[in-house]
Amino acid sequence: MTTEKRPTIEALTALLADDMTQVNQVILDRMGSDVPMIPQLANHLIAAGGKRMRPLLCLAGAYAHLGKQTITDSRVLLLSAAVEFIHNATLLHDDVIDESDKRRGRDTANALWGNEASVLVGDFLFARAFELMVETDDIGVLGMLSSASARITEGEVKQMTMAGKPDSPLQDYLDVITGKTAILFAAAISSGARVVGADAKLVDALHNYGLALGMAFQIVDDALDYRSDLAEMGKNSGDDFMDGKITMPVIYAFEDGTEEERAFWMRTIGEGVIEEGDFEKAVTLLESHKAIDRALSSARTYAEDAISSLEAISDDVLKSALTDAAYYTVARTL
Amino acid sequence: MTTEKRPTIEALTALLADDMTQVNQVILDRMGSDVPMIPQLANHLIAAGGKRMRPLLCLAGAYAHLGKQTITDSRVLLLSAAVEFIHNATLLHDDVIDESDKRRGRDTANALWGNEASVLVGDFLFARAFELMVETDDIGVLGMLSSASARITEGEVKQMTMAGKPDSPLQDYLDVITGKTAILFAAAISSGARVVGADAKLVDALHNYGLALGMAFQIVDDALDYRSDLAEMGKNSGDDFMDGKITMPVIYAFEDGTEEERAFWMRTIGEGVIEEGDFEKAVTLLESHKAIDRALSSARTYAEDAISSLEAISDDVLKSALTDAAYYTVARTL
Repeated sequence: MTTEKRPTIEALTALLADDMTQVNQVILDRMGSDVPMIPQLANHLIAAGGKRMRPLLCLAGAYAHLGKQTITDSRVLLLSAAVEFIHNATLLHDDVIDESDKRRGRDTANALWGNEASVLVGDFLFARAFELMVETDDIGVLGMLSSASARITEGEVKQMTMAGKPDSPLQDYLDVITGKTAILFAAAISSGARVVGADAKLVDALHNYGLALGMAFQIVDDALDYRSDLAEMGKNSGDDFMDGKITMPVIYAFEDGTEEERAFWMRTIGEGVIEEGDFEKAVTLLESHKAIDRALSSARTYAEDAISSLEAISDDVLKSALTDAAYYTVARTL
Repeated sequence: MTTEKRPTIEALTALLADDMTQVNQVILDRMGSDVPMIPQLANHLIAAGGKRMRPLLCLAGAYAHLGKQTITDSRVLLLSAAVEFIHNATLLHDDVIDESDKRRGRDTANALWGNEASVLVGDFLFARAFELMVETDDIGVLGMLSSASARITEGEVKQMTMAGKPDSPLQDYLDVITGKTAILFAAAISSGARVVGADAKLVDALHNYGLALGMAFQIVDDALDYRSDLAEMGKNSGDDFMDGKITMPVIYAFEDGTEEERAFWMRTIGEGVIEEGDFEKAVTLLESHKAIDRALSSARTYAEDAISSLEAISDDVLKSALTDAAYYTVARTL
């Protein structure tokens, strides 16, 4: 633990606070339905918050082209709400799949309302996201987000087929997190620029920023599942280990492991035969191979890639805020 | 059972056979993914067939404007594949929700691959449907289908919240089937016309046809769940009763039932306490109130409404085929 001031996303959230207030209003207005269970369940999840990274990125994308001003272009607000709906749709479906009980420190929707409701309200949010995008009247944006949505599910399916296989190649893991996380970060910030008329050069640069930021973010998220002080993350600690989810530290530790260590990984994360003390042993093995540190170091490389894509941005205040945001994703490692 | 020749959808399928061959090719091509489980699972469901009612309707919509010709406009083929993908996405999610083992006479995807895969591949097909629609470059069509998709899930959620409530008003049932079935029939045929440039009058007339056809189709489907000779339907007989699903015959029989009969419905379909012989007793009660016949009669009224919307179509061959299709939905009642 260092005593240096940690980077935060506060500069970005402060910069876009007025815009986010408007986005939050669109989110609340547009999760409505005549079928009362839909806003109840959606509100439980969405009102719980989270960092709203994807709408923030979408707003930042618009700002990168327009220059700072409170964004009055309703298309940006609709699109920002849409990316948050897509994200929340995938969270609802993930919690069904993972049978998770906790999300953002609260009971999950599936724990409270059941799997059926979570599947259907996820579908509703996804459909509603597309309705909002249609209102932007920009078919290019619809193309970006429909393609991103297909790749998200491909990432999730690939993650499922990798489960329990600690001998998976690293590239498979990178493909999974590209799909399940990085693509939507990339689509959010680049579509925000595009919908207000940015040129291809800026759109592409922002896409690269979002992609690298998403990779860094997910690698850190996965690595920290093996660090003990997780209360602040508001998710179940050690979940990935219990679920047989294959992440970067496990792949490194398996690659470098002895026969005996590999047998441990195959029994636990491979076959799901988990005994008292196995999670602690897993952490010890990961640390002995510096597997968590190596994952965090990989994340830092992605964060630096993200920052190098920001040259295309002319506004120094925004550039600085997005730089901080990239450092923030890996600052949780300190 | 009558000895008259039954109406069929064969005239429609014959009329559009060449086009459907092309649509089937698009479906096969576009369910592909680098993640092998996706085409495997999608192919299991989609290759099993079904009547392909929704792509047929989409093609018929285009034909209503263009006049008969093998449809070479690729936008119509993409859109026809998209509506089939949306339909199959909802089927995958329904089977997860209903925990069904059989669909179209075969093991369901969730029974073979598990719920997680079915949820995710459903999401993939939905996202891919929107990618196909983006390729039509017609944002109006995207508006129709995204709105239809939201209403489908609203119908499904409402169906879930109605489950186990035989005292539900008839209007709630009508709302449910409007969403879960009729809206997509309507969107399929009207968007098929729209994407080739039909005017609002024809688009609206076809929308009305599809809506009424869908209502007739679903009412019959639900009613026949209480008729014994169901082998040909390829679904589990008596499923709705076991699942506590509230359909038109049950609402009628409950409304007209004695105290004792209502207590029977509340115990069985209401509380799910189902004993040997209860399904047979349910059928006997429904027949004693002519509840199935009344539902089938309501379906015939919808079929007639559908047919009356066909005045807007100038081509007699198509009009006749769509008339037959409307009679076909209720002919299963004979």
